[in-house]
Amino acid sequence: MNPIESARLIEQLSWRYAVKKFDPSRKISAPTWDTIERAAVLAPSSYGLQPWRMYVIDDPSVRTKLRAASWNQPQITDASHLVVFARRVEITTAYVEDYIARTAKTRGVTVESLKGFRDMMVGQVNAPASLPGGSMDVYCARQTYIALGFFLYTAAALGIDACPMEGFEPAKYDEILGLRAQGYTATVLGAAGYRAGDDWLASQAKVRLPHHEAVVHV
Amino acid sequence: MNPIESARLIEQLSWRYAVKKFDPSRKISAPTWDTIERAAVLAPSSYGLQPWRMYVIDDPSVRTKLRAASWNQPQITDASHLVVFARRVEITTAYVEDYIARTAKTRGVTVESLKGFRDMMVGQVNAPASLPGGSMDVYCARQTYIALGFFLYTAAALGIDACPMEGFEPAKYDEILGLRAQGYTATVLGAAGYRAGDDWLASQAKVRLPHHEAVVHV
Repeated sequence: MNPIESARLIEQLSWRYAVKKFDPSRKISAPTWDTIERAAVLAPSSYGLQPWRMYVIDDPSVRTKLRAASWNQPQITDASHLVVFARRVEITTAYVEDYIARTAKTRGVTVESLKGFRDMMVGQVNAPASLPGGSMDVYCARQTYIALGFFLYTAAALGIDACPMEGFEPAKYDEILGLRAQGYTATVLGAAGYRAGDDWLASQAKVRLPHHEAVVHV
Repeated sequence: MNPIESARLIEQLSWRYAVKKFDPSRKISAPTWDTIERAAVLAPSSYGLQPWRMYVIDDPSVRTKLRAASWNQPQITDASHLVVFARRVEITTAYVEDYIARTAKTRGVTVESLKGFRDMMVGQVNAPASLPGGSMDVYCARQTYIALGFFLYTAAALGIDACPMEGFEPAKYDEILGLRAQGYTATVLGAAGYRAGDDWLASQAKVRLPHHEAVVHV
């Protein structure tokens, strides 16, 4: 363990803002991008089921199509990297079984020893109203946003600009990327790269509720 | 700006796990806790509306009541700190107006100059089906999970243990804390503190999908 100093974390998070205009000529280096991917995958999820996938859109022609399904927002094509965070459409018994098999292998235990854990998860995913949030859709989407948070935080910590984006047409994204056939559906976007020198928002002060309204002690 | 090294971030995130057993005798210091609160408040949200609140439960008798509404999970009372992340039940026109007034004040601009932004937000919050996610509930909950992600990430970066928790009865939490009357509803929990020496999960390897299944390049 090698804890990071409070002041550095707060400095990086204060520097972060939702970039409206990226410099299209600047690319994130491969090792830095690799850190961002790996950090997002380390995000926790309910039971560890990871009911989401990051689609990193490298192909410029696909980016162009996605921009047309995103109210023509320039970040879609101009950011160094674009991630479509997609949640699982459903968590099947087979998906849980795969997870159990992976857990057994990773931890050097038997599948049988995980039966209680397996049965509990299978029971829940087959009765989606019993899931936290009350539906499969809500449940998987919420986990996806934890991963989005880890993605954004990592970028900020590394000094990489980013922008979370919800202004796009998920059904069109699903079609362009063929997500439904893979069992996923587009949920939220994360663009990353470097802010353009003339992004008007970069110089604006961050607006937040007074601390005592955002954080209440009981 | 003072970027943090990739290796340190990955080290801290790999050290993190969802603590099942906290050491009830160890408390997070006030300055460290302050960093965790402030970092979570720096999480981005849609339009910057921050449709959530962190309730930090300092009162042990309230913790005891909440534990009874959380399948008796020990983290609720044993963690150094317990946060109830509560989302707004609705975002009203008045709430948007307050946000616009705060933005104008913070940025030294007139309320009039923000009219386009205000009208766009007011239009959306009064037609919740038009919100990303398709409903007020889904929209606010998703933003809340970004804040949860920032909370968990900050704790890990600082070397503080934490546990996200969805296994509780939101309606009972709302009642115990009187959240509905304040316009909020319990959504997810974040416990933080120090792992107990005998937490069985602490020594277990993290289980993740193979990287190429979690992150797909297109």
